[in-house]
Amino acid sequence: MECAAIRHFADKRYCYAVEKGHFLIRLETKKGDVAQVILHTQDKYLPLKIMDTRQEQEMTLAYSDNYITYYETVVTIDMVCMRYFFEIKDTAGSRTFYGNHAFYDTCITDLEKMYDCPQTLREEELFELPEWAENKVLYQIFPSRFATEKQVSEDIWYQAPIGHEADLKGSLRGIINHLDYLKELGVDILYMTPVFCSNSSHKYNIDDYYNIDPSFGDKEDLKELVDRAHKLGMYVILDGVFNHTGVDFFAFRDILEKKEQSAYLDWYYIKDFPLIMEWGKKPNYKTFSYAGQMPKLNLQNKETADFVIDVASYWIRECDIDGWRLDVADEVSHTFWKRFRREIKAVKKEALIVGEIWHFAEDFLEGDEWDSVMNYQFSRSVMDLVVTQKMSISAFVGNLNFMKGNLHTKLEGYLWNLIDTHDTERFINCAQKDFRKQMLAASLQLLLPGMPMIYYGDEVGLEGGPDPDCRRGMLWDKSRQNQSLLQYYQTLIRIRHTCPALTKGNITEQYTDDKKGLFYITRHLGNQSITVIFHTKADTVNLAKLAGRQNLVSGQPFSGTLEAYETVVLV
Amino acid sequence: MECAAIRHFADKRYCYAVEKGHFLIRLETKKGDVAQVILHTQDKYLPLKIMDTRQEQEMTLAYSDNYITYYETVVTIDMVCMRYFFEIKDTAGSRTFYGNHAFYDTCITDLEKMYDCPQTLREEELFELPEWAENKVLYQIFPSRFATEKQVSEDIWYQAPIGHEADLKGSLRGIINHLDYLKELGVDILYMTPVFCSNSSHKYNIDDYYNIDPSFGDKEDLKELVDRAHKLGMYVILDGVFNHTGVDFFAFRDILEKKEQSAYLDWYYIKDFPLIMEWGKKPNYKTFSYAGQMPKLNLQNKETADFVIDVASYWIRECDIDGWRLDVADEVSHTFWKRFRREIKAVKKEALIVGEIWHFAEDFLEGDEWDSVMNYQFSRSVMDLVVTQKMSISAFVGNLNFMKGNLHTKLEGYLWNLIDTHDTERFINCAQKDFRKQMLAASLQLLLPGMPMIYYGDEVGLEGGPDPDCRRGMLWDKSRQNQSLLQYYQTLIRIRHTCPALTKGNITEQYTDDKKGLFYITRHLGNQSITVIFHTKADTVNLAKLAGRQNLVSGQPFSGTLEAYETVVLV
Repeated sequence: MECAAIRHFADKRYCYAVEKGHFLIRLETKKGDVAQVILHTQDKYLPLKIMDTRQEQEMTLAYSDNYITYYETVVTIDMVCMRYFFEIKDTAGSRTFYGNHAFYDTCITDLEKMYDCPQTLREEELFELPEWAENKVLYQIFPSRFATEKQVSEDIWYQAPIGHEADLKGSLRGIINHLDYLKELGVDILYMTPVFCSNSSHKYNIDDYYNIDPSFGDKEDLKELVDRAHKLGMYVILDGVFNHTGVDFFAFRDILEKKEQSAYLDWYYIKDFPLIMEWGKKPNYKTFSYAGQMPKLNLQNKETADFVIDVASYWIRECDIDGWRLDVADEVSHTFWKRFRREIKAVKKEALIVGEIWHFAEDFLEGDEWDSVMNYQFSRSVMDLVVTQKMSISAFVGNLNFMKGNLHTKLEGYLWNLIDTHDTERFINCAQKDFRKQMLAASLQLLLPGMPMIYYGDEVGLEGGPDPDCRRGMLWDKSRQNQSLLQYYQTLIRIRHTCPALTKGNITEQYTDDKKGLFYITRHLGNQSITVIFHTKADTVNLAKLAGRQNLVSGQPFSGTLEAYETVVLV
Repeated sequence: MECAAIRHFADKRYCYAVEKGHFLIRLETKKGDVAQVILHTQDKYLPLKIMDTRQEQEMTLAYSDNYITYYETVVTIDMVCMRYFFEIKDTAGSRTFYGNHAFYDTCITDLEKMYDCPQTLREEELFELPEWAENKVLYQIFPSRFATEKQVSEDIWYQAPIGHEADLKGSLRGIINHLDYLKELGVDILYMTPVFCSNSSHKYNIDDYYNIDPSFGDKEDLKELVDRAHKLGMYVILDGVFNHTGVDFFAFRDILEKKEQSAYLDWYYIKDFPLIMEWGKKPNYKTFSYAGQMPKLNLQNKETADFVIDVASYWIRECDIDGWRLDVADEVSHTFWKRFRREIKAVKKEALIVGEIWHFAEDFLEGDEWDSVMNYQFSRSVMDLVVTQKMSISAFVGNLNFMKGNLHTKLEGYLWNLIDTHDTERFINCAQKDFRKQMLAASLQLLLPGMPMIYYGDEVGLEGGPDPDCRRGMLWDKSRQNQSLLQYYQTLIRIRHTCPALTKGNITEQYTDDKKGLFYITRHLGNQSITVIFHTKADTVNLAKLAGRQNLVSGQPFSGTLEAYETVVLV
């Protein structure tokens, strides 16, 4: 047994309330190493001579990533504190007892070592995530390029490649005019990149946080957009760029004018004067990504932090938006996000708070900062599995399970599973325009738990290279749209909406076949039973024994043969 | 190479600021598995085509516990974000590359996978611990039994065994009268168990947090005690019992009187009425340890939390105390302690905040809750090493290293390394009155980094069985004191105070010998070089090659022979 891989800490990811009186206990072991794990528990404060509270329960092999197996069980108790340890039997038949980071050959109870293994189970840290958002379908809009109500020639609108400077006159009114399109597609939540005053097409350098950029419209337009979306049963998330501002933001402008005498010096991290702002030179103040046009805010300054909290609260109060996606969120401190959550949830309890982060970071997701993240881990795995084919399907599932094993169990339905964004090359370009691959990627987004995020245009085959070319005008001309792709997205979203078993069902059967490139998963919920089979390779696979079952994707009985990159959903 | 044991998360214990611009990076590997680790770094935002910021640095094998080796390095950078990965060579000569939880056979830079391994280095989470406390010697006083200025007969004072009800008339004046004794012993910090109004000898059921228990004295006495201690260069820590109150506390009394009509219902966790308070019955309200006399406070109620913060602030402001030891601290939420720290440090920046916790819990020690903990992990290991002899010396050192590897690197000098307390049987009783064993235990406390805590009387051989017998009257009668033990404590503390290399020096040589029961460690600091050898077995050991070096413990040249359980400090 590999003791170096056995892990349990008495807090956070390993031990927490899932609901009042119910606590999840998680143990990590080396994958394939262990045959059975039994959790032994006992009340911390009732000695055996007063009451024998000892209990045993077998733990479930919950999931395995590529190296680790995660055992879990939920303990239902009416006690403040519990002593516990793990009895671990390996596949070779040997046994060890593990408690409070020590290993014993003999049962810890017999060793009278039980006293060494206490743990407090605190319900106070039980947290809620906005229920309305779980497993819902997101649609990311880049407002300056999505839709306009103005006259813009086709040459301008469909220019490709496209640069930062292109002015397509996209606007909130344009979006409002296409809400029906989104509703028809099956979108549940719109996420718009920044809409506040800014001199760029992307608007990540904001000069005025209290006003909509005039080219996009005004506050009334946003109100109307949110109101109409709500009436259609959709939600709206804005982009909160609180890590940095634009240089025309009042506080930075004051510094530019008054220099050392500015009352706003402490709003930024200024090293010295004169400020070095020229493009291509390293700024002498903190910025986002060395961009002199994006000076970094000092959120350790209470006044600055107060300002940001007020902005974030203002738009919820004024326009009833449903949450914030937080730009460059991992470059801002945990301390600030803890306060942000407290105060924003006080304004709107159901607001969704989602951080942009490109690496795996469970620390922001412990229930007191963000509700979710943009799941770039997912997009990288999809890329390696589907596009470069360097990753096996079992490794792909292992990566999904790594996240499950290292995050609070509530999180799975909230991760923003994406395949591309305004910051990356379009998936279809990465996939050399092989639409079968994009359909597979869309299947992985739309038929698994999480919040699948569709980047505007992906559903109709909009192409685009790396930023800024991934921000082309939306394909509204039906002749330019890939209609079969659009229907595929619509079908999958409809399946997702009508089959809660897909996202909330218990997994009753699951396997991967690396040689055939198959991922087979069956889930049950109530009377619903549903089998999804992802085929991730270019050949065909015979699954004759399943022939005849209804395939929700094709709307026909399953032929028994999976084509290249085909996904079937069988009922 | 055991990939299942290789770990690095991009936050908390694995990656954090140690000072401005300097970040510690930590990697875990299976013990004995790895020959070399190289950290590859690159600026996140500067592409290679603009500037090649790639760097490599070899990581140090910092320490090993019984299963894991911890590699560390400090990265000095002037960048916001860094991409990095680890190149890990195993003892068999094979090599893997590990970044953002994935393993690669080929260098990640060559794979163009560098982009997948970003991490933000946030100086905002840099925290400070009170410098005055680091590595200092603590002395725990149980005020009702330590000293009195009143007439108490020897029969009463030295009664043994002793019960909860015994009234020895211990007081603050008694403590004041013995400050010189403590100073002479070498004590740096006094920690007193609760001193506020309470009807018990231990006073962990507090009825009035704003007043000193009349039997102990009054606020002026505490002021004088702290003032005199400060003048002697000593510090004073009080015991904060904020998890629960006594039943005569005003809010609980109000509930007893007004029942469902009480305005203080939400200060506790009351399930129903009438309250079941009888001893031996399970209370129908949350308590500490099912003790009806200790109802648990609801600190999720802001009013209650405000009260506690006010109490903790009041005694700092009024009497200038130097910190709080927090009773049953792990049964109170992280959320509350985060607020507690913010507000208490605002009242006195240098206040020390220490949690009582019996299991290993790094989660409270991430710089935003407590400064330290009562280190019961240490006492258990000492017990298993010295008393039961079930633990090898290498496993003992492994346990110390487990804590180093799983805590912020600043913490080592702050852990309250104890061998017994008012809650446990006296060490000397556990050791069957073998004073050689207690001297070894004291050596492990006093000659290693941390804050050694001496429980009153241990230094003069005060005996006592499990609680309440471990709370006997202090041995003030010189004929009852073990003078050679006392001198041993004084000598070791003097060595500790005069040899900062002992606690802050770089380890230049270290080994353990399980067969001989030896732990050998040499540390350097400036011009100081010091070797400590702990001998943990009952036989004698020949170390003739070291004979002649000055032994600070005996004050004589080292004979070359270590007696049973002997410790030497060689210069």
